Amino acid sequence: MIKVGVVGGTGYTGAELLRLLSQHPHVELCAITSRAEIGIPVAQIFPSLRGRVHLAFSAPDAATLKKCDVVFFATPHGVAMEMARDLLNAGVKIIDLGADFRLKDAQAFEAWYGLPHACPELLEEAVYGLAELHRYKIAQARLIGMAGCYPTAVQLGFAPLLANAKTQAIVDATSLIADVKSGVSGAGRKAEISLLYAEASDNFKAYGVRGHRHHPEIVQGLQTLSEINDIGLTFVPHLTPMIRGIHASLYARILPGRQDTDFQALFEAFYADSPFIDVMPAGSTPETRSVRASNMVRMAVHRPGDGQMLVILVVEDNLVKGASGQAVQCMNMMFGLAEESGLMQIATFP
Amino acid sequence: MIKVGVVGGTGYTGAELLRLLSQHPHVELCAITSRAEIGIPVAQIFPSLRGRVHLAFSAPDAATLKKCDVVFFATPHGVAMEMARDLLNAGVKIIDLGADFRLKDAQAFEAWYGLPHACPELLEEAVYGLAELHRYKIAQARLIGMAGCYPTAVQLGFAPLLANAKTQAIVDATSLIADVKSGVSGAGRKAEISLLYAEASDNFKAYGVRGHRHHPEIVQGLQTLSEINDIGLTFVPHLTPMIRGIHASLYARILPGRQDTDFQALFEAFYADSPFIDVMPAGSTPETRSVRASNMVRMAVHRPGDGQMLVILVVEDNLVKGASGQAVQCMNMMFGLAEESGLMQIATFP
Amino acid sequence: MIKVGVVGGTGYTGAELLRLLSQHPHVELCAITSRAEIGIPVAQIFPSLRGRVHLAFSAPDAATLKKCDVVFFATPHGVAMEMARDLLNAGVKIIDLGADFRLKDAQAFEAWYGLPHACPELLEEAVYGLAELHRYKIAQARLIGMAGCYPTAVQLGFAPLLANAKTQAIVDATSLIADVKSGVSGAGRKAEISLLYAEASDNFKAYGVRGHRHHPEIVQGLQTLSEINDIGLTFVPHLTPMIRGIHASLYARILPGRQDTDFQALFEAFYADSPFIDVMPAGSTPETRSVRASNMVRMAVHRPGDGQMLVILVVEDNLVKGASGQAVQCMNMMFGLAEESGLMQIATFP
Amino acid sequence: MIKVGVVGGTGYTGAELLRLLSQHPHVELCAITSRAEIGIPVAQIFPSLRGRVHLAFSAPDAATLKKCDVVFFATPHGVAMEMARDLLNAGVKIIDLGADFRLKDAQAFEAWYGLPHACPELLEEAVYGLAELHRYKIAQARLIGMAGCYPTAVQLGFAPLLANAKTQAIVDATSLIADVKSGVSGAGRKAEISLLYAEASDNFKAYGVRGHRHHPEIVQGLQTLSEINDIGLTFVPHLTPMIRGIHASLYARILPGRQDTDFQALFEAFYADSPFIDVMPAGSTPETRSVRASNMVRMAVHRPGDGQMLVILVVEDNLVKGASGQAVQCMNMMFGLAEESGLMQIATFP
Repeated sequence: MIKVGVVGGTGYTGAELLRLLSQHPHVELCAITSRAEIGIPVAQIFPSLRGRVHLAFSAPDAATLKKCDVVFFATPHGVAMEMARDLLNAGVKIIDLGADFRLKDAQAFEAWYGLPHACPELLEEAVYGLAELHRYKIAQARLIGMAGCYPTAVQLGFAPLLANAKTQAIVDATSLIADVKSGVSGAGRKAEISLLYAEASDNFKAYGVRGHRHHPEIVQGLQTLSEINDIGLTFVPHLTPMIRGIHASLYARILPGRQDTDFQALFEAFYADSPFIDVMPAGSTPETRSVRASNMVRMAVHRPGDGQMLVILVVEDNLVKGASGQAVQCMNMMFGLAEESGLMQIATFP
Repeated sequence: MIKVGVVGGTGYTGAELLRLLSQHPHVELCAITSRAEIGIPVAQIFPSLRGRVHLAFSAPDAATLKKCDVVFFATPHGVAMEMARDLLNAGVKIIDLGADFRLKDAQAFEAWYGLPHACPELLEEAVYGLAELHRYKIAQARLIGMAGCYPTAVQLGFAPLLANAKTQAIVDATSLIADVKSGVSGAGRKAEISLLYAEASDNFKAYGVRGHRHHPEIVQGLQTLSEINDIGLTFVPHLTPMIRGIHASLYARILPGRQDTDFQALFEAFYADSPFIDVMPAGSTPETRSVRASNMVRMAVHRPGDGQMLVILVVEDNLVKGASGQAVQCMNMMFGLAEESGLMQIATFP
Repeated sequence: MIKVGVVGGTGYTGAELLRLLSQHPHVELCAITSRAEIGIPVAQIFPSLRGRVHLAFSAPDAATLKKCDVVFFATPHGVAMEMARDLLNAGVKIIDLGADFRLKDAQAFEAWYGLPHACPELLEEAVYGLAELHRYKIAQARLIGMAGCYPTAVQLGFAPLLANAKTQAIVDATSLIADVKSGVSGAGRKAEISLLYAEASDNFKAYGVRGHRHHPEIVQGLQTLSEINDIGLTFVPHLTPMIRGIHASLYARILPGRQDTDFQALFEAFYADSPFIDVMPAGSTPETRSVRASNMVRMAVHRPGDGQMLVILVVEDNLVKGASGQAVQCMNMMFGLAEESGLMQIATFP
Repeated sequence: MIKVGVVGGTGYTGAELLRLLSQHPHVELCAITSRAEIGIPVAQIFPSLRGRVHLAFSAPDAATLKKCDVVFFATPHGVAMEMARDLLNAGVKIIDLGADFRLKDAQAFEAWYGLPHACPELLEEAVYGLAELHRYKIAQARLIGMAGCYPTAVQLGFAPLLANAKTQAIVDATSLIADVKSGVSGAGRKAEISLLYAEASDNFKAYGVRGHRHHPEIVQGLQTLSEINDIGLTFVPHLTPMIRGIHASLYARILPGRQDTDFQALFEAFYADSPFIDVMPAGSTPETRSVRASNMVRMAVHRPGDGQMLVILVVEDNLVKGASGQAVQCMNMMFGLAEESGLMQIATFP
């Protein structure tokens, strides 16, 4: 059994980790920490876990966490980087669901997140936790910076088009558009007016159009994947009145010489060995609920009208594949388990 | 492996059965029928099952169904009773999620459901599928009439108060009130104006106040349980804008001589051996989402104000404990499996 | 034109007051105060008012408010009572949407609201702002304590049954039950975890079962109306996933000798002269959306089953008839305008 | 008073017309027709209109309709064109909310709507009912083909960029993208499985990616406006779980020589005289609820990142500005009334 600790167990990604880990056949939950709730039984905060998780929240104490094989950080940015060095030195693997180890450039981190990086020397080593695109590195890693929820959907959708862009470009990488819609849980379990039911229900809006922290993350990821530098991406996130789910509508202009590409075949081949990626039949329009509470991603490739513009539709559950599920998927890879271990829950319909 | 057939797989209880059965460790799905969708792959109708259920819908053909060990009917009333005799004679067990085998009185069935019963001689044998209240009989049964969604919540909430009412009455059984609220999926997957998103969203209403088919079912159940005949129940169902979930607010007047009863202890003792019933600590207010997509029932006992009126709050997922989950729970009992087998999914939060 | 000030314009009842008052033909909005937003244009906080309300928030300054004919307090309890004496002395009328002037008993106020009353000598004078039940007094008043949202629905529903209870009782006033469901805006525009979209959506729960501040208010109102003291009321509020709307399901046991009462006629006669009360035809089930964003109340009388128990269903918009609309209705009465002035908006459907 | 008839009063646009027209100071509602509901009082189908609309549905009878000054058709395509010639000949003006008179090309109509046009000779005369872009023609018209809900939002957003495109192009008109999201009422009041609450709630999906009937309408409109023919538009509509509201995210590549355009000023100038168009301050992100149940359109201009791509965000209420409100706005113009007459309802917030 893998001994697992969770730092920051009171948010939505923390709660989702607990749901998944407590049902995982190879995991023993050893510690769940929360500074604000020390001593309170986890199941008191989350009644859905009554009878299933018997731990109480404890202090984020290094001594306790060092007894774990792996520690998940389900915390805002800035927490994991303070404890990372110490835990790694003690032989504990780290999977950070926050943003501390996503960006490779410490200055970019500081610019976007507003504080200097506490351990820039680890950024190089840290592996980006986007499971399908970095399987080999993840399996070797001791420190994972999990991909964000939007970046997971957007990169998985563009990846088949850009993976070999350096040698054989298919689409214009300088004018990519990602029009992405997220359920409200993506904003976290924070007491903010704009996230109230009476504000977010029966309402739709864009936000962060001027600049969103996931923009540099996506661009970095697409650059790494494509090995080309001039990625031009317009990224517009929207808030949609649902609890879970991300729907990405991706637009890419097909290059003049590549009009006869079989995009459906390209996508199917690219994800042939990925159990959690479902390339749907041509003409499909994936729905977020078809992946609700599951680790699946479903996507479909469209080429409407005159066929100049490719439209890729991608859906994921932002708390599972976009966060906690993919984190468990990475853990499985790091510990030599089957990728699907503990993650085969079927989506909740209706 | 238990060979299972499902008749009527295109509604919500059918889809939920498929989600649960396809993950059940002791079940082999053998046939899923739908007259309207013969030949269509199940996963085409329900994309959430892509990659997990590989069957296509077939005709509700007796020959096929007779090869099963058990057949679930996830059909409107009137279907199961036409096929029941034949299947039972072939040694196939039947679990009817419809209403054909709930009421013991064929005339009451005809009065409430508007057609004569096709096999009244089976009504006596049929066991009422409310798992916690009829474990012994269910284990012996070959024909189960599953409890309805409202009746499950209401009876489980009143049961500890009425189980021994004949010998030691605690509450006034002649003035019970059940004010019950259901998510919209409880009305089924039917193309009706009143169930449209634009009609049912941001709206709340009562319905069926004059008379609802679940009223005689609940009264029959409470009479059987209490062995008293003059059960007086006011039952008002409401439609609430959520997909899944039932919340029952039950009101019972405490009899003058029983004011010193420890109701919390009474409920805890009554359900001590029921893994799916969670009697919450005194003062709790259970939320429907704490059981969403799980087979759990959570309830709490309140005695507000001057203490004359007992208030019992009960939550369940109408499609799981209120239908398909409890049906699998009954199947487990009928085949000698642990009651929890295949039903340990943790509720989806948030 | 009536010169109007609004104290506390940043909550939902404040915003709703601004919507109604800015369209009122006899009102001039003179001041809108908010300590937290001084100098900020109102339309910046509420984009729905862009182009329609041109004021900026100002400090809740006595000098400014004294220039008004009437001041509405859309504030939490404790604010209006600090300014009331001063404004009244200056000849300004007061309509408090908070709780400061609802309860007649200063000790009860302190017990339920946790602070001593600042001007107990005004409690006697203050008129309870439930428009249909106190028209005459409201028209004479200079200080109104507006009825709460739940109390409005519950009292209007029980009123025809209890108005003459002292001389001719019809129902058992000692065992009344009010099972009431509210949309989330009823909890106010407060940054609280439990009110987040991801918490309150697709969820249903009761709350405040042990004791809710509206309980003593309703009991006081029913006692005043009926002139009997032993009102026994079980009041259970619930939170339902919609923005606006209250649905009250009221239960009253018909007294043995009053079984032949024509309740439909009784209700119709009682509200014959009330333009905002719609007693629907027998058998109706009013929907909250039929009054959404309007000042209407719709209700229906049911007598299911054996007819011992009367069921009254009442719907209102908690922000309009349950708060700001009824406050404007009271203002109309206080200034000799037609009751309906500025309040004839038709409900938004769908 | 303008004598008004409404053909097809049982859908959402019909109901919304009734809400608006019954409050309009210069309108007398004379007839509301519905083949399916002849003789049924309108307020029985729509309880929100109880006490406000006293008519019953009548047969769509030419004799009755000919007594009207103007007839609104709130019907599916194919109805208005059958009655248009006859009514026009009788001197009755026509405002068709359906699709019969939107497209100028009878063959395009037949291709997209699947039936031949009944009066192609009227297509030339028919004026396209997009109020802000065709004020002069609308004022002269006797036959209006109202703009669709999506086309209204998309064209209003692109119009300032394309109005003078022939002489001075600003953006690349060959690669426009409209990623548009609609509430569920946009699909109409139709009993379809995909529109059920349990299907459309907590879910997000694209649809009609291969081709949507609003695509040729938008392209025709943009061609007319810009007087250029090679408009290239990728149009992807999405269904979002809200009742009302459309949010259009529009993407246009700024031409190399036009990088120094002041787009904010351009938009503000273009709509300076349009009372229903609110060009919000730079940096704004309009929310659909800020126009809910009102005739307002709010939009904001963004130029994120390197500034190559312009992002226009547009919100409207699909049933008001996207249908019935704009139809009344056109009626006002046709009868010489102020554009705003009867349409000044403030949006419902929250």
